[in-house]
Amino acid sequence: MSAPIRYYYDLMSQPSRALLIIFRLSNMPFEDCVVALRNGEHLTDDYKREINRFQRVPCIHDNGYKLAESVAILRYLSAKGKIPEHLYPKYFVDQSRIDEFLEWQHMTLRLTCAMYFRTVWLEPLLTGKTPTEAKIEVMRMHMERNLDVVEEVWLEGKDFLTGNSLTVADIFAACEIEQTRMADYDVRIKYPKIRAWLKRVRQSCNPHYDVAHEFVYKISGTGPQAKL
Amino acid sequence: MSAPIRYYYDLMSQPSRALLIIFRLSNMPFEDCVVALRNGEHLTDDYKREINRFQRVPCIHDNGYKLAESVAILRYLSAKGKIPEHLYPKYFVDQSRIDEFLEWQHMTLRLTCAMYFRTVWLEPLLTGKTPTEAKIEVMRMHMERNLDVVEEVWLEGKDFLTGNSLTVADIFAACEIEQTRMADYDVRIKYPKIRAWLKRVRQSCNPHYDVAHEFVYKISGTGPQAKL
Repeated sequence: MSAPIRYYYDLMSQPSRALLIIFRLSNMPFEDCVVALRNGEHLTDDYKREINRFQRVPCIHDNGYKLAESVAILRYLSAKGKIPEHLYPKYFVDQSRIDEFLEWQHMTLRLTCAMYFRTVWLEPLLTGKTPTEAKIEVMRMHMERNLDVVEEVWLEGKDFLTGNSLTVADIFAACEIEQTRMADYDVRIKYPKIRAWLKRVRQSCNPHYDVAHEFVYKISGTGPQAKL
Repeated sequence: MSAPIRYYYDLMSQPSRALLIIFRLSNMPFEDCVVALRNGEHLTDDYKREINRFQRVPCIHDNGYKLAESVAILRYLSAKGKIPEHLYPKYFVDQSRIDEFLEWQHMTLRLTCAMYFRTVWLEPLLTGKTPTEAKIEVMRMHMERNLDVVEEVWLEGKDFLTGNSLTVADIFAACEIEQTRMADYDVRIKYPKIRAWLKRVRQSCNPHYDVAHEFVYKISGTGPQAKL
């Protein structure tokens, strides 16, 4: 019997949370390898040589095979039969609709939510400087342009992003959007469909969703109930 | 017999060029549907309704099935047996190494090369305003941080990004890097491994590489020989 995969992650990282939720929903055994980004544990030469040559999280080691990039990891584990088909289908046409979202998100939803979080929460913490209102406004505008697409295109006429049941697409998307809570952004105000969908995603994923978002809830000072 | 897929693209778009090269190398028949981004052909309501709900290129229609996002399209066509295994392997472990690059590139190489191109070439064209030297410098720094990773990590000890032969990873990457030519950036100066690798990619893909880059060469005012 082969050893369980080693999963390197930090719950402050959006795709780390997404994979954690997916692994737990899939009942996939894994070895928990937490990497404290806040302590720069990913920046050492050892980490680069032994764990992940890109010095990021998440990544996995599967009996010596090292793989980075959350979507690549998901696809690899799906091919190994570790991810149930209702979360990531094997039939190529159904899979392509989910891949379309997973590829779409990087430079749109993920980038702009991450930039908003970075500008409003992370950079002030690291530099002690407050961003200007004008800069926050630009970041908010970029982010909302993509939240508009989630609300109006992806959630048009269906309960989840790619159909009427939860898939990995919803989990990746929700983890990106939840990140903005820590920057005090409340997505529920302008986006009723996103609000209702986030509730469905959380319910479909719990208790794992709340476990993955423990630090997000804590830092944002709001329990899941307060927000969703 | 089913109709060939309809391929919607513009050669000014990096992933459009990558897919064009991949389709031609794969001897895959397709119907050429050029979308002139410069004329805003993707911004009409008709385009949104009939062609691509995200109003972008590239995308395909396969007997009525509409799919966007270059990497999702590649995987879909690979699953249909349209892409040879030497370009995108079917064995999941080999595939995961290429997926790792395809997922890595979005927020790193692709984003920063595109932002450099946008800042130096596109925005001045659209707004008539010249960017400050300081802004160009920041964009260049972000881009070179990722070109460093291509030079030092991806091209470490091998001829191509994921091994010793050309795959779709190289084609996607080369098309992103070529975009910066139009903004007068010459990647050859600081990056000897990238220079030699680009030459190999072009040779492995020609004549299709030069066909796809016709406008890039024209706009940058340099023939392929002058540059590579």
